[in-house]
Amino acid sequence: MTLELEPIGVVRSPWREKFGIPRQSGLADALESSVELAEHLPPESVRGLEQVSHLWIVAWFHEAVADGWRPTVRPPRLGGSARLGVFATRSPHRPNPIALSLVELVAVEPRRLLFVGGDLLDGTPVLDLKPYLAWAESRPQARCDWAPEAPRPLPVTFTPELDADLDDGVRATIEHSLRWDPRPAHQRDQTGRRYAVALADVDVQFHVDAAGTVCVTAIGPRRDLPEGGSSTSRG
Amino acid sequence: MTLELEPIGVVRSPWREKFGIPRQSGLADALESSVELAEHLPPESVRGLEQVSHLWIVAWFHEAVADGWRPTVRPPRLGGSARLGVFATRSPHRPNPIALSLVELVAVEPRRLLFVGGDLLDGTPVLDLKPYLAWAESRPQARCDWAPEAPRPLPVTFTPELDADLDDGVRATIEHSLRWDPRPAHQRDQTGRRYAVALADVDVQFHVDAAGTVCVTAIGPRRDLPEGGSSTSRG
Repeated sequence: MTLELEPIGVVRSPWREKFGIPRQSGLADALESSVELAEHLPPESVRGLEQVSHLWIVAWFHEAVADGWRPTVRPPRLGGSARLGVFATRSPHRPNPIALSLVELVAVEPRRLLFVGGDLLDGTPVLDLKPYLAWAESRPQARCDWAPEAPRPLPVTFTPELDADLDDGVRATIEHSLRWDPRPAHQRDQTGRRYAVALADVDVQFHVDAAGTVCVTAIGPRRDLPEGGSSTSRG
Repeated sequence: MTLELEPIGVVRSPWREKFGIPRQSGLADALESSVELAEHLPPESVRGLEQVSHLWIVAWFHEAVADGWRPTVRPPRLGGSARLGVFATRSPHRPNPIALSLVELVAVEPRRLLFVGGDLLDGTPVLDLKPYLAWAESRPQARCDWAPEAPRPLPVTFTPELDADLDDGVRATIEHSLRWDPRPAHQRDQTGRRYAVALADVDVQFHVDAAGTVCVTAIGPRRDLPEGGSSTSRG
């Protein structure tokens, strides 16, 4: 049995490649993204969303599709060595690559929803939107023993030259993305290894020092990326 | 752009037809359902789920597909007259008929997951399973102004003859399904109107009296239902 879906919109976000995206919704709660409704949907299909503070975005991990999936995965949080069944994780590499993100609505426009707390790549196809129902979906006592709490953010610093005249928006985008430590788990013991990442309209170079501080060393105009961005870090 | 999905399993539940299903996950927290994994999935794909207390089931509203969808819907909770945009509601009649249910895991078997709190029709195709992450997905302060709190359960009574020798499992299935008032919103002022519903292995007849009590008047062996159940009440 094959089921067919047609996207109902697309995500616009600061994340141009998978590398650098916070690994769960709600973490980057200072960064704005949006959903642009597809043209075949009438604007009244979002009527009433202004009565809702939090929204589910059901989306399609389009960048993960080509990589396929495996029955077990190694979550970054477990250091990249321990294996869990794919359905016990939130890995994007799944039999059906469906993303589920809980975001906070900022504004409802006729064909566009603005929100914070996203964790979806720019260009992600959106499959569905649903209001969050706290009385049904807020379960503070729920356990996930292998991921019991939010990751701790790292401090993010800039070189004095960069710090001197950094645009507030660019600063926020960099800080609120890189503080969640985008490095692959198996590279975390390679102190000083250099990375480059495309964020919003800039390219950012950084490393993580021995004390666990993210040190941003260069910010430049954005390079061209292949369609959909690149998923690899460049060290 | 058309995206394709293949179900990864199927729901087994007490609900044989849409009529009678609690209108959100978590309400029927005394009734057990299960997901049976599809044969093409190896059992290690659920390894580690025993570390998780609550699970997202992403599923396909297969019974709603034939009815299509409209840009606005009339939620039963609003009395069936006020209209909201489909994306501001949890209606099953959506552009992409994707269901999202939060359930509590009871047991993890190699090819079967047992859970309580389901709200999915027996036979529902399952698209994905994800661990619930309370630190990311529990937002007790979130608002949905048109559905601010859980519905209040109605009392459920049985005739003395039925009450005398009712199996505990059958009683629980009936009580925990019908207490959420399955009547269509526009029939709620038709006190005494009679309904029949198929629940688990029995057919149940009931009405709701003037005081708002669900009165079960007959329980019989299950009739044959058309494939997938019927969605209409029979008054």
